[in-house]
Amino acid sequence: MESISVGLLGLGTVGSGVVKVIESHQDKLMHQIGCPVQIKKALVKEINKVRDVDIDTSILTLDPEEVLLDPEIDIVVEVMGNIEETKEHLVKALTHKKHVVTANKDLMAVYGPELLSLASENQCDLFYEASVAGGIPILRGLVDGLASDRITKMMGIVNGTTNFILTKMTKEGRSFDDVLAEAQALGFAEADPTADVGGLDSARKMAILSTLGFSMNIDLDDVKLKGITEVTEEDLQYAKQFGYIMKLIGYAHREGNRVEVSVEPALLEESHPLASVNDEYNAVYVYGEAVGETMFYGPGAGSLPTATAVVSDLVGVMKNMRLGVNGKSAVSPQFLKQLKDDEEIYSKHFLRLHVEDEVGVLSSITSVFSQNGASFEKVLQNPLGEEKAEIVLVTHKTSLKSFEKILVELRDLKGVQFVKSTYRVEGGDA
Amino acid sequence: MESISVGLLGLGTVGSGVVKVIESHQDKLMHQIGCPVQIKKALVKEINKVRDVDIDTSILTLDPEEVLLDPEIDIVVEVMGNIEETKEHLVKALTHKKHVVTANKDLMAVYGPELLSLASENQCDLFYEASVAGGIPILRGLVDGLASDRITKMMGIVNGTTNFILTKMTKEGRSFDDVLAEAQALGFAEADPTADVGGLDSARKMAILSTLGFSMNIDLDDVKLKGITEVTEEDLQYAKQFGYIMKLIGYAHREGNRVEVSVEPALLEESHPLASVNDEYNAVYVYGEAVGETMFYGPGAGSLPTATAVVSDLVGVMKNMRLGVNGKSAVSPQFLKQLKDDEEIYSKHFLRLHVEDEVGVLSSITSVFSQNGASFEKVLQNPLGEEKAEIVLVTHKTSLKSFEKILVELRDLKGVQFVKSTYRVEGGDA
Repeated sequence: MESISVGLLGLGTVGSGVVKVIESHQDKLMHQIGCPVQIKKALVKEINKVRDVDIDTSILTLDPEEVLLDPEIDIVVEVMGNIEETKEHLVKALTHKKHVVTANKDLMAVYGPELLSLASENQCDLFYEASVAGGIPILRGLVDGLASDRITKMMGIVNGTTNFILTKMTKEGRSFDDVLAEAQALGFAEADPTADVGGLDSARKMAILSTLGFSMNIDLDDVKLKGITEVTEEDLQYAKQFGYIMKLIGYAHREGNRVEVSVEPALLEESHPLASVNDEYNAVYVYGEAVGETMFYGPGAGSLPTATAVVSDLVGVMKNMRLGVNGKSAVSPQFLKQLKDDEEIYSKHFLRLHVEDEVGVLSSITSVFSQNGASFEKVLQNPLGEEKAEIVLVTHKTSLKSFEKILVELRDLKGVQFVKSTYRVEGGDA
Repeated sequence: MESISVGLLGLGTVGSGVVKVIESHQDKLMHQIGCPVQIKKALVKEINKVRDVDIDTSILTLDPEEVLLDPEIDIVVEVMGNIEETKEHLVKALTHKKHVVTANKDLMAVYGPELLSLASENQCDLFYEASVAGGIPILRGLVDGLASDRITKMMGIVNGTTNFILTKMTKEGRSFDDVLAEAQALGFAEADPTADVGGLDSARKMAILSTLGFSMNIDLDDVKLKGITEVTEEDLQYAKQFGYIMKLIGYAHREGNRVEVSVEPALLEESHPLASVNDEYNAVYVYGEAVGETMFYGPGAGSLPTATAVVSDLVGVMKNMRLGVNGKSAVSPQFLKQLKDDEEIYSKHFLRLHVEDEVGVLSSITSVFSQNGASFEKVLQNPLGEEKAEIVLVTHKTSLKSFEKILVELRDLKGVQFVKSTYRVEGGDA
C-alpha cells in the first residue's frame, strides 16, 4: 500500500484531536503500518470556522457522501456524535466496504450488534474502543487480554462528570447543585448535564462493556438506572462514618448465565480499588474466575485521550488491511441473554430513615426486616430534635425483592416519617 | 483446522493452571477459535509425581524432543522457567516452525530480541504477555491500546513479594526481616528471596516493558538496580510524616530519545495512583503524551492469573493461525537505545542523616547543597539524645550527578556522622 486514506465524520474536539495525533505521531504510525496515513476528507458543519487544529480547508466538505462514497477512502472515522443520522452514515460506509472506527457510545449502545453484523457481512472492521472510557484500552483488555477467562463481574466508574461531582461533594462537603455549577463553569459538565448526572451515559457504556464481557447482547433497556441528582451531603457523611465512599457505579454481574446490569450511586468499602479513583478519572474493575481482580484506570474523556483510542483502533484496522484479514476479529455473542429477576439480585443496602423518637420504633423496624429474612450489619441512631431521630443502617446481603418489600412496609410503619435515601453497598467480595 | 495441538514445557504451578484454564474454558475457546484445543504432550521432570491437576500420564514425557520435534504440535507453551537450557528448547521449537507462548521473564529479559527475530524469520508467533505482571494484560495495552501514542514514562510495581513486604512494614510498623519471614511462611516469598528483594525480578520485567513501551532494545544491564533489603521502619515512618508511601518502583522515563530505566525503593506522594496498590498486587502506571495517565492493576503472579495470560496468548496465536498471519504481529524496535547520563536524570531525593547536635551543622549542610545548585523542599530535625540529632530532608528536583556529589561531600563534612538512607521521591508530575 502506498498510503492509507481516512475520511473523518466530524471535526469537533475529538476530531481535531485525531488530526493532531495522526500528525504528531506520523513516524510511529509509519513504523508500525509501513506506509503513511492521510486524512483525505472531513465532514464538517461549517467550512470556514476557526478551529484549534491546522487543516487544509480544501479537504473539508458539508456533504457526507463526499466522505462515504469516495472510492479512495479506506477507513471512515466517526466522531460527530448523534444517533439516527450517524447510523445511516455508517450503514452507507460499511455497505461501501469502508472500515469504520467510532467513538460514539450512544450509537454503539443502541445499534452496536446491528452495525457489527453488517460490518462482518461486508468483511469490514468496526472498532469502537474510544466509545467506553476514552483513553483506557478496556475493550481490548476484555476481548484479548482476558480471552481465556470467564468474567463474572465488572464494576465501572465510566463517567467523568459524575465522578468529579461526587469527589468534590465527598472531599469538600458541598451540595450537588453547588458542585454541578462549578463543574459546568470548568467545562467538566455540559450545559444540559442530564445524560451524565441521570446515569444514561454510564448505562450506554455498561451495555457495551457487558455485551463484550459476558458475550451476550445486553440492550440499553436492560440496564437498571439511577442517577446522582438525589445524593445529599448527609448521605456522604454517614457513608464516611461507616467507612464507605460513594461512586456512580456501573455494575454488571453474572451468576451462571444469569446477569444483572445496573448504574446507580453505590457505597464502596474504602479499601476497594475503585474507591480511590477520583476527580474526572474513570476506571473499570473486572473480576475473572481465573485472573481474580484487575482494574484499568485512566482518563475517561478529553480530546487527546479519546483521539488516542481512535487512532489506536485505526492502527488495528490498518494492520488488518496489511495482512488482508479485515472483518474477522469480531466474535458474535456466545450466550443468549438471561436477565436476573429481583429475587436473584443480592447485595447489602444502606438505608436512612427519619422516625419519631419514641420507645419501640427501632424495635418495630427491626421486626419488619426480620419478617422479610433480612438483618442489619451496622446501625446508628441520631436525635434530630423535636422528638425526631434519624436512623441509618446497613443490611447484610439481602435480595432486591425483599429489600423493596421492606421499603414498602417501612413507609407504612407507625413512627416512620420518611425513607430519606437508599443505596447499594459493595464490599471487597467478588 | 480440526483441532489445535499444544505441547507444554513444564507442568508446575503455572503449567497445571494452563491445563485447568484450557479444560474449564473449552467452550469459550471453541467459540472464539472454531475448533478444540488439546494438550498433546507435556515435558516433566518426573512422570509419576502427585499433581494437583488431572492429566493422562501417557502424554507426559521426560524427553524435550518429544514435544519440540512432534510434527503434530502447533504451539509450544513454555512454563518451565530457567534460562540457558530453555532458550535452546525454544530455538529448536521455532526452527521447527512451532509458535511459542512463554511466561519466562528471566529468559525474555535476556534473549527476548534474539528469540523474537528468530520467530519472525520462521513466520512464527512468540507471545510473552505472562512474563510481566501475571494477570494484567499490560503488554497488549502498550502495543495495541496505546499504539498511536508516545509513551514517555512508565512506573511499575511489578513484584508481588516486595510489595507485600513493604505494605506490611508500612501498615504494621514491622522490620524487613520479620515481614520477610512471614512472607516465606505464607508462600509469598521464596526460600531464597534474593531475586525478589534485591530487585532483579523487577529489573527483568522493566527491561521487557521499556523495550516495548519505548520501542528500543533495553538490556537487563541497562536497568539501574537497588533492592529493599536496607529499608528500615524509621525510613517508612519519616516518609509517612512527609506524606509519602514507599514502593519498589520500576521506573522508565524518556525525554526526547534519551531514556533511563531503574528499579529502586522510591517514595510516592500518597495521592499517586500507585500509592494505593497494596499487598501482593501489581500495577503499571503509563504516561503517554496524548492519553495522559493510565494504570493497569491486577495480580502479578499466581497459578491461575498467570495461566490466564498464557492461554490468552494461545488464543492470539490460534486466531492468527486461523487467519494465516502468524509471525507478523511483532514490530521491531524503532529507535536506537540512548541511555541518559547521571546529569540528565532529575528527581527529588529523600535523605536521612545522623549529625552532632551542635550550632552550625544544619547551616553547613545547607551550604553543601547550595554550592551544588540544590535546595530543600522539606526538612525536619529530631534530637536523638547524647548530643546527636537526626536530620531528614527532601530536596527539590536535582540531577543524580549533583546529588551523588552532595552525598560524597556530606560524608566528609564535620558534624555529620552517617548518611542513614537516601531514596528517590516521585510526585504526581509527569
